[in-house]
Amino acid sequence: MSESSLLNQLVESLRRLPGIGPKSAQRMAFHLLERDRDAGRQLAQVMAAAMERIGRCERCRTLTEHVRCHLCASERRDPRLLCIVEQPSDIVAIEQATHYEGLYFVLGGRLSPLDGIGPEELGLDRLEARFKEPDLGEAILAISPTVEGLATAHYIADLARGSQLRLSRIAHGVPLGGELEFVDGSTLAHAFAGRQGL
Amino acid sequence: MSESSLLNQLVESLRRLPGIGPKSAQRMAFHLLERDRDAGRQLAQVMAAAMERIGRCERCRTLTEHVRCHLCASERRDPRLLCIVEQPSDIVAIEQATHYEGLYFVLGGRLSPLDGIGPEELGLDRLEARFKEPDLGEAILAISPTVEGLATAHYIADLARGSQLRLSRIAHGVPLGGELEFVDGSTLAHAFAGRQGL
Ligand SMILES: [Zn+2]
Ligand SMILES: [Zn+2]
Repeated sequence: MSESSLLNQLVESLRRLPGIGPKSAQRMAFHLLERDRDAGRQLAQVMAAAMERIGRCERCRTLTEHVRCHLCASERRDPRLLCIVEQPSDIVAIEQATHYEGLYFVLGGRLSPLDGIGPEELGLDRLEARFKEPDLGEAILAISPTVEGLATAHYIADLARGSQLRLSRIAHGVPLGGELEFVDGSTLAHAFAGRQGL
Repeated sequence: MSESSLLNQLVESLRRLPGIGPKSAQRMAFHLLERDRDAGRQLAQVMAAAMERIGRCERCRTLTEHVRCHLCASERRDPRLLCIVEQPSDIVAIEQATHYEGLYFVLGGRLSPLDGIGPEELGLDRLEARFKEPDLGEAILAISPTVEGLATAHYIADLARGSQLRLSRIAHGVPLGGELEFVDGSTLAHAFAGRQGL
Protein backbone atom coordinates (compact mmCIF):
# COMPACT_ATOMS: atom_id res chain seq x y z
CA MET A 1 0.00 0.00 0.00
CA SER A 2 1.45 3.39 -0.86
CA GLU A 3 1.60 5.72 2.13
CA SER A 4 -1.09 8.06 0.88
CA SER A 5 -3.67 5.44 -0.10
CA LEU A 6 -7.15 5.77 1.33
CA LEU A 7 -6.73 2.34 2.89
CA ASN A 8 -3.63 3.53 4.72
CA GLN A 9 -5.43 6.65 5.85
CA LEU A 10 -8.21 4.46 7.24
CA VAL A 11 -5.72 2.30 9.14
CA GLU A 12 -3.98 5.40 10.52
CA SER A 13 -7.30 6.92 11.62
CA LEU A 14 -8.30 3.71 13.39
CA ARG A 15 -4.94 3.69 15.19
CA ARG A 16 -5.92 6.93 16.91
CA LEU A 17 -8.55 4.96 18.85
CA PRO A 18 -7.24 4.14 22.35
CA GLY A 19 -5.79 0.64 22.69
CA ILE A 20 -5.60 -0.01 18.93
CA GLY A 21 -2.21 -1.00 17.52
CA PRO A 22 -1.22 -1.26 13.85
CA LYS A 23 -2.25 -4.93 13.52
CA SER A 24 -5.70 -4.38 15.02
CA ALA A 25 -6.27 -1.26 12.96
CA GLN A 26 -5.40 -3.13 9.78
CA ARG A 27 -7.68 -6.03 10.71
CA MET A 28 -10.53 -3.61 11.38
CA ALA A 29 -10.06 -1.81 8.07
CA PHE A 30 -10.02 -5.04 6.05
CA HIS A 31 -12.98 -6.44 7.98
CA LEU A 32 -15.13 -3.39 7.26
CA LEU A 33 -14.08 -3.09 3.62
CA GLU A 34 -14.46 -6.75 2.77
CA ARG A 35 -17.25 -7.94 5.00
CA ASP A 36 -19.23 -5.12 6.59
CA ARG A 37 -19.33 -1.80 4.73
CA ASP A 38 -22.69 -1.06 6.35
CA ALA A 39 -21.00 -1.04 9.76
CA GLY A 40 -18.33 1.28 8.40
CA ARG A 41 -20.87 3.67 6.90
CA GLN A 42 -22.93 3.68 10.07
CA LEU A 43 -19.86 4.29 12.24
CA ALA A 44 -18.79 7.18 10.00
CA GLN A 45 -22.21 8.79 10.21
CA VAL A 46 -22.75 8.35 13.95
CA MET A 47 -19.15 9.39 14.68
CA ALA A 48 -19.53 12.63 12.72
CA ALA A 49 -22.84 13.43 14.41
CA ALA A 50 -21.47 12.61 17.88
CA MET A 51 -18.35 14.77 17.50
CA GLU A 52 -20.51 17.64 16.25
CA ARG A 53 -23.55 17.49 18.48
CA ILE A 54 -22.54 16.00 21.84
CA GLY A 55 -21.78 18.69 24.38
CA ARG A 56 -22.09 18.95 28.15
CA CYS A 57 -25.26 18.91 30.26
CA GLU A 58 -25.85 22.43 31.57
CA ARG A 59 -26.67 21.04 34.99
CA CYS A 60 -24.30 18.11 35.67
CA ARG A 61 -21.66 18.58 32.93
CA THR A 62 -21.89 15.01 31.65
CA LEU A 63 -21.78 14.30 27.92
CA THR A 64 -25.11 14.65 26.13
CA GLU A 65 -26.53 15.95 22.87
CA HIS A 66 -29.33 17.66 24.82
CA VAL A 67 -29.27 20.81 26.96
CA ARG A 68 -29.90 18.60 29.97
CA CYS A 69 -28.95 14.93 30.15
CA HIS A 70 -31.66 12.32 30.65
CA LEU A 71 -30.71 11.88 34.32
CA CYS A 72 -30.98 15.58 35.17
CA ALA A 73 -34.23 15.74 33.16
CA SER A 74 -35.72 12.68 34.85
CA GLU A 75 -38.48 13.04 37.43
CA ARG A 76 -37.60 9.63 38.81
CA ARG A 77 -34.25 10.63 40.28
CA ASP A 78 -33.99 11.83 43.87
CA PRO A 79 -32.98 15.53 43.87
CA ARG A 80 -31.90 15.34 47.51
CA LEU A 81 -28.83 13.28 46.58
CA LEU A 82 -25.89 14.49 44.51
CA CYS A 83 -22.98 12.25 43.58
CA ILE A 84 -19.81 14.03 42.48
CA VAL A 85 -17.65 12.12 40.00
CA GLU A 86 -14.59 12.83 37.90
CA GLN A 87 -15.71 11.51 34.53
CA PRO A 88 -18.93 10.74 32.62
CA SER A 89 -17.77 7.10 32.48
CA ASP A 90 -17.95 7.00 36.30
CA ILE A 91 -21.70 7.65 36.02
CA VAL A 92 -22.06 4.60 33.77
CA ALA A 93 -20.07 2.47 36.24
CA ILE A 94 -22.15 3.63 39.24
CA GLU A 95 -25.47 3.23 37.42
CA GLN A 96 -24.55 -0.32 36.43
CA ALA A 97 -23.15 -1.42 39.80
CA THR A 98 -25.28 0.30 42.44
CA HIS A 99 -28.86 1.24 43.23
CA TYR A 100 -28.03 4.91 43.56
CA GLU A 101 -31.05 6.96 42.51
CA GLY A 102 -29.87 10.53 42.99
CA LEU A 103 -28.31 13.02 40.60
CA TYR A 104 -24.70 13.55 39.53
CA PHE A 105 -22.14 16.27 39.05
CA VAL A 106 -19.17 15.68 36.73
CA LEU A 107 -15.94 17.49 37.55
CA GLY A 108 -14.18 16.44 34.36
CA GLY A 109 -10.88 15.89 36.18
CA ARG A 110 -9.08 16.59 39.45
CA LEU A 111 -7.45 19.74 40.77
CA SER A 112 -3.97 19.90 39.30
CA PRO A 113 -2.52 23.43 39.39
CA LEU A 114 0.63 22.37 37.52
CA ASP A 115 -1.53 21.24 34.59
CA GLY A 116 -3.60 24.41 34.76
CA ILE A 117 -6.63 22.60 36.18
CA GLY A 118 -8.10 24.80 38.88
CA PRO A 119 -11.57 25.13 40.49
CA GLU A 120 -12.94 26.89 37.43
CA GLU A 121 -11.99 24.09 35.05
CA LEU A 122 -13.82 21.60 37.29
CA GLY A 123 -16.96 23.77 37.47
CA LEU A 124 -16.62 24.14 41.23
CA ASP A 125 -18.36 27.52 41.18
CA ARG A 126 -21.39 25.79 39.74
CA LEU A 127 -21.06 23.00 42.28
CA GLU A 128 -20.94 25.56 45.11
CA ALA A 129 -24.15 27.15 43.80
CA ARG A 130 -25.70 23.71 43.73
CA PHE A 131 -24.72 23.09 47.36
CA LYS A 132 -26.92 26.08 48.26
CA GLU A 133 -30.06 24.72 46.58
CA PRO A 134 -32.62 23.95 49.31
CA ASP A 135 -33.59 20.54 47.87
CA LEU A 136 -30.16 19.04 48.34
CA GLY A 137 -29.63 16.97 51.50
CA GLU A 138 -26.52 14.90 50.83
CA ALA A 139 -23.56 15.08 48.51
CA ILE A 140 -21.49 11.95 47.92
CA LEU A 141 -17.92 12.28 46.72
CA ALA A 142 -17.07 9.42 44.36
CA ILE A 143 -13.58 10.57 43.45
CA SER A 144 -10.58 8.31 42.90
CA PRO A 145 -8.41 8.25 46.05
CA THR A 146 -5.30 9.54 44.32
CA VAL A 147 -3.28 12.44 45.70
CA GLU A 148 -5.00 14.88 43.36
CA GLY A 149 -8.36 13.26 43.97
CA LEU A 150 -7.98 13.64 47.73
CA ALA A 151 -6.97 17.30 47.31
CA THR A 152 -10.05 17.83 45.16
CA ALA A 153 -12.27 16.18 47.78
CA HIS A 154 -10.77 18.47 50.45
CA TYR A 155 -11.46 21.52 48.34
CA ILE A 156 -15.08 20.44 47.80
CA ALA A 157 -15.51 19.74 51.52
CA ASP A 158 -14.45 23.33 52.17
CA LEU A 159 -17.09 24.57 49.73
CA ALA A 160 -19.79 22.66 51.64
CA ARG A 161 -18.68 23.92 55.05
CA GLY A 162 -21.29 26.06 56.80
CA SER A 163 -24.18 24.59 54.82
CA GLN A 164 -26.66 22.09 56.25
CA LEU A 165 -25.50 19.60 53.65
CA ARG A 166 -24.43 16.13 54.69
CA LEU A 167 -21.20 15.36 52.83
CA SER A 168 -19.89 11.81 52.44
CA ARG A 169 -17.36 9.98 50.35
CA ILE A 170 -17.49 6.44 49.01
CA ALA A 171 -15.16 4.23 50.97
CA HIS A 172 -13.18 1.00 51.31
CA GLY A 173 -12.51 -1.26 48.41
CA VAL A 174 -11.65 1.38 45.87
CA PRO A 175 -7.94 0.62 45.64
CA LEU A 176 -5.60 3.51 46.49
CA GLY A 177 -4.34 5.16 43.37
CA GLY A 178 -6.97 3.32 41.32
CA GLU A 179 -9.12 4.77 38.58
CA LEU A 180 -12.80 4.43 39.39
CA GLU A 181 -13.84 3.21 35.97
CA PHE A 182 -11.56 0.15 36.20
CA VAL A 183 -12.93 -1.00 39.57
CA ASP A 184 -15.16 -4.08 39.40
CA GLY A 185 -18.86 -3.53 39.99
CA SER A 186 -19.22 -5.32 43.33
CA THR A 187 -16.27 -3.46 44.87
CA LEU A 188 -17.80 -0.23 43.71
CA ALA A 189 -21.23 -1.16 45.10
CA HIS A 190 -19.59 -2.04 48.43
CA ALA A 191 -17.70 1.25 48.55
CA PHE A 192 -20.90 3.06 47.77
CA ALA A 193 -22.90 1.40 50.54
CA GLY A 194 -20.05 2.04 53.00
CA ARG A 195 -19.71 5.76 52.32
CA GLN A 196 -18.58 7.84 55.27
CA GLY A 197 -19.38 11.31 56.52
CA LEU A 198 -16.63 13.86 56.00
CA MET B 1 -27.61 6.85 29.19
CA SER B 2 -30.98 6.38 27.53
CA GLU B 3 -30.90 3.70 24.84
CA SER B 4 -31.42 6.12 21.98
CA SER B 5 -28.80 8.71 22.99
CA LEU B 6 -26.18 9.65 20.43
CA LEU B 7 -23.51 8.50 22.88
CA ASN B 8 -25.11 5.05 23.01
CA GLN B 9 -25.34 4.95 19.24
CA LEU B 10 -21.63 5.76 19.07
CA VAL B 11 -20.78 2.96 21.52
CA GLU B 12 -22.94 0.51 19.55
CA SER B 13 -21.34 1.52 16.25
CA LEU B 14 -17.86 1.04 17.71
CA ARG B 15 -18.87 -2.41 18.94
CA ARG B 16 -19.35 -3.49 15.34
CA LEU B 17 -15.58 -3.23 14.90
CA PRO B 18 -13.99 -6.70 15.15
CA GLY B 19 -12.55 -7.51 18.58
CA ILE B 20 -14.24 -4.61 20.36
CA GLY B 21 -16.41 -5.44 23.38
CA PRO B 22 -18.78 -3.12 25.25
CA LYS B 23 -16.12 -1.87 27.70
CA SER B 24 -13.62 -1.01 24.97
CA ALA B 25 -16.28 0.64 22.85
CA GLN B 26 -17.33 2.82 25.76
CA ARG B 27 -13.74 3.73 26.54
CA MET B 28 -13.17 4.70 22.91
CA ALA B 29 -16.30 6.85 22.78
CA PHE B 30 -15.41 8.75 25.96
CA HIS B 31 -11.80 9.15 24.90
CA LEU B 32 -12.76 10.71 21.58
CA LEU B 33 -15.49 12.93 23.03
CA GLU B 34 -13.48 14.18 25.97
CA ARG B 35 -9.92 14.25 24.72
CA ASP B 36 -9.63 13.90 20.97
CA ARG B 37 -12.57 15.11 18.88
CA ASP B 38 -10.20 15.78 16.02
CA ALA B 39 -9.39 12.08 15.85
CA GLY B 40 -13.11 11.30 15.84
CA ARG B 41 -13.85 13.80 13.07
CA GLN B 42 -10.95 12.53 10.99
CA LEU B 43 -11.99 8.90 11.46
CA ALA B 44 -15.58 9.74 10.45
CA GLN B 45 -14.41 11.49 7.30
CA VAL B 46 -11.85 8.91 6.21
CA MET B 47 -14.21 6.05 7.05
CA ALA B 48 -17.01 7.52 4.91
CA ALA B 49 -14.64 8.11 1.99
CA ALA B 50 -13.09 4.64 2.30
CA MET B 51 -16.46 2.82 2.35
CA GLU B 52 -17.56 4.83 -0.67
CA ARG B 53 -14.48 4.94 -2.85
CA ILE B 54 -12.40 1.84 -2.18
CA GLY B 55 -13.11 -0.88 -4.72
CA ARG B 56 -11.09 -3.69 -6.28
CA CYS B 57 -8.06 -3.43 -8.56
CA GLU B 58 -9.13 -4.44 -12.07
CA ARG B 59 -5.97 -6.50 -12.47
CA CYS B 60 -5.25 -8.19 -9.12
CA ARG B 61 -8.55 -7.69 -7.24
CA THR B 62 -6.95 -6.20 -4.13
CA LEU B 63 -8.58 -3.25 -2.34
CA THR B 64 -7.77 0.15 -3.83
CA GLU B 65 -9.45 3.44 -4.59
CA HIS B 66 -7.80 3.46 -8.03
CA VAL B 67 -8.59 1.45 -11.17
CA ARG B 68 -5.27 -0.32 -10.69
CA CYS B 69 -3.54 -0.72 -7.33
CA HIS B 70 -0.09 0.79 -6.86
CA LEU B 71 1.58 -2.62 -7.15
CA CYS B 72 -0.04 -3.48 -10.49
CA ALA B 73 0.70 0.06 -11.70
CA SER B 74 4.34 -0.07 -10.60
CA GLU B 75 7.14 -0.43 -13.14
CA ARG B 76 9.43 -1.73 -10.42
CA ARG B 77 7.61 -5.03 -9.88
CA ASP B 78 8.66 -8.14 -11.81
CA PRO B 79 5.82 -9.11 -14.20
CA ARG B 80 7.27 -12.60 -14.60
CA LEU B 81 6.18 -13.55 -11.06
CA LEU B 82 2.60 -13.81 -9.82
CA CYS B 83 1.75 -14.64 -6.23
CA ILE B 84 -1.80 -15.88 -5.61
CA VAL B 85 -3.25 -15.07 -2.19
CA GLU B 86 -6.63 -15.33 -0.49
CA GLN B 87 -6.96 -11.86 1.01
CA PRO B 88 -5.61 -8.34 0.51
CA SER B 89 -4.17 -8.57 4.05
CA ASP B 90 -1.97 -11.45 2.84
CA ILE B 91 -0.29 -9.01 0.45
CA VAL B 92 0.58 -6.72 3.36
CA ALA B 93 2.00 -9.67 5.32
CA ILE B 94 4.12 -10.88 2.37
CA GLU B 95 5.35 -7.38 1.51
CA GLN B 96 6.44 -6.82 5.10
CA ALA B 97 8.06 -10.20 5.68
CA THR B 98 9.67 -11.16 2.38
CA HIS B 99 11.65 -9.70 -0.49
CA TYR B 100 9.13 -10.82 -3.09
CA GLU B 101 9.12 -8.36 -5.97
CA GLY B 102 6.52 -9.80 -8.33
CA LEU B 103 2.83 -9.13 -8.73
CA TYR B 104 -0.21 -10.53 -6.91
CA PHE B 105 -3.62 -11.99 -7.56
CA VAL B 106 -6.25 -11.91 -4.81
CA LEU B 107 -8.83 -14.70 -4.79
CA GLY B 108 -10.93 -13.15 -2.03
CA GLY B 109 -11.57 -16.53 -0.42
CA ARG B 110 -11.33 -20.27 -1.05
CA LEU B 111 -13.47 -22.62 -3.08
CA SER B 112 -16.40 -23.61 -0.91
CA PRO B 113 -19.34 -24.90 -2.94
CA LEU B 114 -21.57 -25.23 0.14
CA ASP B 115 -21.17 -21.49 0.79
CA GLY B 116 -21.78 -20.68 -2.86
CA ILE B 117 -18.14 -19.78 -3.46
CA GLY B 118 -17.15 -21.23 -6.83
CA PRO B 119 -14.47 -20.43 -9.42
CA GLU B 120 -16.35 -17.35 -10.59
CA GLU B 121 -16.47 -15.75 -7.12
CA LEU B 122 -12.70 -16.18 -6.83
CA GLY B 123 -12.05 -14.64 -10.26
CA LEU B 124 -10.47 -17.84 -11.54
CA ASP B 125 -11.50 -17.07 -15.12
CA ARG B 126 -9.43 -13.92 -14.90
CA LEU B 127 -6.57 -15.86 -13.31
CA GLU B 128 -6.69 -18.42 -16.14
CA ALA B 129 -6.44 -15.58 -18.69
CA ARG B 130 -3.51 -14.26 -16.76
CA PHE B 131 -1.76 -17.63 -16.88
CA LYS B 132 -1.77 -17.28 -20.67
CA GLU B 133 0.00 -13.94 -20.75
CA PRO B 134 3.44 -14.45 -22.35
CA ASP B 135 5.30 -12.38 -19.73
CA LEU B 136 4.43 -14.69 -16.88
CA GLY B 137 7.05 -17.28 -15.92
CA GLU B 138 6.10 -18.45 -12.44
CA ALA B 139 2.99 -18.45 -10.29
CA ILE B 140 3.34 -18.93 -6.54
CA LEU B 141 0.39 -20.18 -4.54
CA ALA B 142 0.35 -18.56 -1.10
CA ILE B 143 -2.90 -20.08 0.12
CA SER B 144 -3.59 -21.26 3.67
CA PRO B 145 -3.15 -25.07 3.89
CA THR B 146 -6.70 -25.70 5.07
CA VAL B 147 -8.92 -28.31 3.40
CA GLU B 148 -10.61 -25.66 1.27
CA GLY B 149 -7.32 -23.93 0.59
CA LEU B 150 -5.76 -27.16 -0.68
CA ALA B 151 -8.79 -27.81 -2.91
CA THR B 152 -8.45 -24.29 -4.28
CA ALA B 153 -4.74 -24.85 -4.97
CA HIS B 154 -5.58 -28.08 -6.82
CA TYR B 155 -8.13 -26.31 -8.95
CA ILE B 156 -5.64 -23.59 -9.83
CA ALA B 157 -2.96 -26.18 -10.64
CA ASP B 158 -5.42 -27.69 -13.13
CA LEU B 159 -5.90 -24.28 -14.74
CA ALA B 160 -2.14 -23.96 -15.26
CA ARG B 161 -1.74 -27.44 -16.72
CA GLY B 162 -0.57 -27.45 -20.33
CA SER B 163 0.98 -23.98 -20.09
CA GLN B 164 4.74 -23.34 -19.90
CA LEU B 165 4.16 -21.76 -16.50
CA ARG B 166 6.18 -22.88 -13.52
CA LEU B 167 3.76 -23.31 -10.62
CA SER B 168 4.91 -23.45 -7.00
CA ARG B 169 3.40 -23.14 -3.55
CA ILE B 170 4.91 -21.65 -0.41
CA ALA B 171 5.94 -24.38 1.95
CA HIS B 172 6.81 -25.57 5.46
CA GLY B 173 6.28 -23.47 8.48
CA VAL B 174 2.81 -22.27 7.68
CA PRO B 175 0.94 -24.31 10.31
CA LEU B 176 -1.73 -26.67 9.00
CA GLY B 177 -5.17 -25.13 9.37
CA GLY B 178 -3.59 -21.75 10.08
CA GLU B 179 -4.67 -18.43 8.63
CA LEU B 180 -1.88 -16.79 6.69
CA GLU B 181 -2.36 -13.35 8.15
CA PHE B 182 -1.72 -14.60 11.70
CA VAL B 183 1.58 -16.29 10.85
CA ASP B 184 4.66 -14.50 12.16
CA GLY B 185 6.84 -12.76 9.61
CA SER B 186 9.93 -14.98 9.80
CA THR B 187 7.89 -18.17 9.42
CA LEU B 188 6.23 -16.65 6.40
CA ALA B 189 9.56 -15.55 4.93
CA HIS B 190 10.93 -19.07 5.42
CA ALA B 191 7.90 -20.67 3.78
CA PHE B 192 8.28 -18.26 0.90
CA ALA B 193 11.96 -19.04 0.30
CA GLY B 194 11.22 -22.79 0.54
CA ARG B 195 8.41 -22.85 -2.00
CA GLN B 196 8.09 -26.06 -3.98
CA GLY B 197 7.17 -26.91 -7.55
CA LEU B 198 3.72 -28.43 -7.95
ZN1 LIG C 1 -27.08 16.25 33.54
ZN1 LIG D 1 -3.60 -4.61 -8.44
